[in-house]
Amino acid sequence: MTRTPIKNLAPFPDGFVTVAGWVETVRDQKKVQFVILRDESGAVQLVNPATRDLEDGASAEEHAAAALTETIGGLAHGTMIRVTGELKHDERVKLGGIEVKIATLEVVSEALPETPIADDSSLDKRLDWRFLDLRRPEASLIFKIQTTFEHALRSWWVERDFIEIHTPKLMASASESRAELFEMEYFETKAYLAQSPQFFKQMAQPAGFGKVFEIAPAFRADPSFTSRHATEFTSIDAEISWIDSHEDVMQMHEQLLAHAIGAVAAKHGAAIEAAFGVELSAPTTPFPRIPLAEARQIVADGGYEIPRADGDLDPEAERRLSAWVKANHGSDFVFVTDYATGIRPFYHMRREGDPTVTNSYDLLYNGTEISTGAQREHRLDVLIGQAREKGLEPEELEFYLDFFRYGVPPHGGFGMGLARVLMLMLGLGSIRETTYLFRGPTRLLP
Amino acid sequence: MTRTPIKNLAPFPDGFVTVAGWVETVRDQKKVQFVILRDESGAVQLVNPATRDLEDGASAEEHAAAALTETIGGLAHGTMIRVTGELKHDERVKLGGIEVKIATLEVVSEALPETPIADDSSLDKRLDWRFLDLRRPEASLIFKIQTTFEHALRSWWVERDFIEIHTPKLMASASESRAELFEMEYFETKAYLAQSPQFFKQMAQPAGFGKVFEIAPAFRADPSFTSRHATEFTSIDAEISWIDSHEDVMQMHEQLLAHAIGAVAAKHGAAIEAAFGVELSAPTTPFPRIPLAEARQIVADGGYEIPRADGDLDPEAERRLSAWVKANHGSDFVFVTDYATGIRPFYHMRREGDPTVTNSYDLLYNGTEISTGAQREHRLDVLIGQAREKGLEPEELEFYLDFFRYGVPPHGGFGMGLARVLMLMLGLGSIRETTYLFRGPTRLLP
Repeated sequence: MTRTPIKNLAPFPDGFVTVAGWVETVRDQKKVQFVILRDESGAVQLVNPATRDLEDGASAEEHAAAALTETIGGLAHGTMIRVTGELKHDERVKLGGIEVKIATLEVVSEALPETPIADDSSLDKRLDWRFLDLRRPEASLIFKIQTTFEHALRSWWVERDFIEIHTPKLMASASESRAELFEMEYFETKAYLAQSPQFFKQMAQPAGFGKVFEIAPAFRADPSFTSRHATEFTSIDAEISWIDSHEDVMQMHEQLLAHAIGAVAAKHGAAIEAAFGVELSAPTTPFPRIPLAEARQIVADGGYEIPRADGDLDPEAERRLSAWVKANHGSDFVFVTDYATGIRPFYHMRREGDPTVTNSYDLLYNGTEISTGAQREHRLDVLIGQAREKGLEPEELEFYLDFFRYGVPPHGGFGMGLARVLMLMLGLGSIRETTYLFRGPTRLLP
Repeated sequence: MTRTPIKNLAPFPDGFVTVAGWVETVRDQKKVQFVILRDESGAVQLVNPATRDLEDGASAEEHAAAALTETIGGLAHGTMIRVTGELKHDERVKLGGIEVKIATLEVVSEALPETPIADDSSLDKRLDWRFLDLRRPEASLIFKIQTTFEHALRSWWVERDFIEIHTPKLMASASESRAELFEMEYFETKAYLAQSPQFFKQMAQPAGFGKVFEIAPAFRADPSFTSRHATEFTSIDAEISWIDSHEDVMQMHEQLLAHAIGAVAAKHGAAIEAAFGVELSAPTTPFPRIPLAEARQIVADGGYEIPRADGDLDPEAERRLSAWVKANHGSDFVFVTDYATGIRPFYHMRREGDPTVTNSYDLLYNGTEISTGAQREHRLDVLIGQAREKGLEPEELEFYLDFFRYGVPPHGGFGMGLARVLMLMLGLGSIRETTYLFRGPTRLLP
């Protein structure tokens, strides 16, 4: 009999069904046994009248019933079972108003009796046993949300003639900076892992692709242990041609996010509220835009002195600015624009007439930065000058500089961390919760 | 004035439009100049009546017209320009029956006059200048097809409640074999690049995710230089729970492909026929299934002796078998099933009652293997025995073996090379043509 996903049982008429999943709990009472069975879609109560203490001369059926009772009594949490039984609708059953009376039960794969993690295990311990941690419905919900979110992003792009690219992660040089770079032997030479798809998504512009996107891993040999950093993360990237400034990138960015968050809210809104206490809805566009200098002033006026010398916001300033924006503009998002040249990479275009400021932005969501976007410098001589100014050797960048020698349209784009967006969307405390398998300086397992 | 993509011009009424793109050709005749302008969507003819040899006392307008004529005459192939002009429908114009009479022309980004590649450049040389090579409409078409194909795959999965996962590419051990493994320093230890998402997509099964998919890079330190191999490739992966055998995986696989190829044919069929001479249509399901032993017999009956000792097919045998299937079953696809245990990895399940054969398959498409699929061994003791038999130390696989200790459903899946599918779909000679930026033993640039 074909397995029915548990979430699809409710509309079925009373009658025989087959379900399969893992044992969440067993209540082994004297006269009746209850099993909560969970699969990828939900949980259902299984019930079995207990048959114990057979008398001499018991029938074969009675022996079978007693064996079933014993099997159920011995089921360890997590054991995978397949059950055929009689579905009954009964509104007294708290779990969905249905239960399945067990006819046959097959133990498909036994679990060790001692589960290595419990509800109160530390995050680190849970990550050691991530495949068990992910059995929590609120954990797998995160990845169902991820699926909806990404599919909505891609659908928005595909409907607008963006081209999906897969840029190489093996590179002959650094893509962002010499710091935080993973290096490896590569046949007769060395290779580096891409810190971002920056150079290669820009390559699509002289290639005439027009508008491109990619969702793919990026790698940073970053020794930090914050709740927002990982050595490997999923980067959401887009790059578009023929822009007038970073304003065109921001418009694409906010429309894209409004669409994708709206799709998540429509499909998972109730589940998100139940699991995380968050009322999610599609954000209103346009998002507020605040130049960095003004943002710093707002934070200073709020009584916070940013303890860093480079002029950037720190995490506390991001939180304060976001709170101010929420209070004054009602938005969970804010574009902080016009970043100072000193804290931006060489390839960001600088403002015409004021080279101290770049045509760039950071996007904050619920208090934390999720993305950097910019117009790119596409004029070769200016680009080389900016690279030199940042201490880079144009010789090392030859393959990249070539992209600008045979005609290139004005262009720009953004990169955005998937796990960060999900963390902030759901009000969670760490990207470790929103990453399938987190990678950090001391974590390569499982 | 907002830029209009060239493909959208035709329905416009006669009147002013702005277009932008790169100069494909200039025909600089005595009395009139023609520019073929191309953008990501198509090409259009621009026209300008030439103004030359001004007489003394020429008006400002005449001087401006002469300057425009000179600019157009000096346009290098590839230069990016933005043009506003008057759109005219004229059925005598071969290129789409429209032309744009130039009013203003802005040179946005000049190309060096000597283009480093030409139509007759070698593939290797074209790859050196991939961003110029990709300007060919038939090259960018490949990535438009890729976009449609992948979006159709994901839509099929998403509609069926598959969860999208992003498995880590940084690992503490080999995922497939010690051979062909990229190794790197990772803080205080060593890390390896994932050769496939195998272990981690399997992890989703004890995690209770049910059905998962991923499209992501995989890495092989493979020193070979064939038209089918790369050191980095995009792997299409799916894994599903509660299967009865590899037959369930094959059914998912063929339905998925029929849907996605149908989507490509519907959207790009005419363009594919024009560019590649291929008539594409959705394949009929089910695909033929032929056990490996029978496949070998078919090839032997055809007069070809496979020059390898391990019992597998070689590329020539794959071509011959596919030709036979095409002739006898009318199918471009064939599942070769029941691979011998000796040529399959330790995690493939073996047939009950005949451990010399695995519950696995290869999928051939137009003569070449594009995918391997299998039911996985989920019984821990059997799995450990098979690992030992293949010379692996269970100690090194502890984190993977843990996945099988706390309950795991029967499961299986496949991995499929994106660039191979596209190469075979379009009848191209190498995955270098269907990869955005190819990576091989001697190629890390651009």
